[in-house]
Amino acid sequence: MKVRILVSFKDSVLDPQGQTVKNALLTLGYGFVRDVRQGKVFELDLEGVSEDEARRLVPEIASKVLANPIIETFVWDILA
Amino acid sequence: MKVRILVSFKDSVLDPQGQTVKNALLTLGYGFVRDVRQGKVFELDLEGVSEDEARRLVPEIASKVLANPIIETFVWDILA
Repeated sequence: MKVRILVSFKDSVLDPQGQTVKNALLTLGYGFVRDVRQGKVFELDLEGVSEDEARRLVPEIASKVLANPIIETFVWDILA
Repeated sequence: MKVRILVSFKDSVLDPQGQTVKNALLTLGYGFVRDVRQGKVFELDLEGVSEDEARRLVPEIASKVLANPIIETFVWDILA
């Protein structure tokens, strides 16, 4: 089973990478870009895991290993 | 309009960050993790851009600024 986890900063946390990308885009003439937020994506290939088990294990993995719950949030879904 | 762009290494490109995360998960007892690939996610807020314009501009921005087409691929969609 493949799952995808998106990890991004909480809205209240500054995102300097996103700001840098936004400024680059404005400099390049893409003036319609109002905001950019950058985050991480993880695609995990899980072996012999049922959908029910994934619903328990993936949030555990995401909050323990992939994201820092103090400053980041995550969303995830099953790809296949 | 908000769009989300996922940038990941091409399958043929080694992903040391993903391997490190995989090894960490195996060490922590998540032995069912067969593979991990790590990438980047960008959420762009675009002002006054129609859907047709977005379909032209977002791939241009992604391939020129957000991704390195030699080693990375991207997918994107419209969030709202």
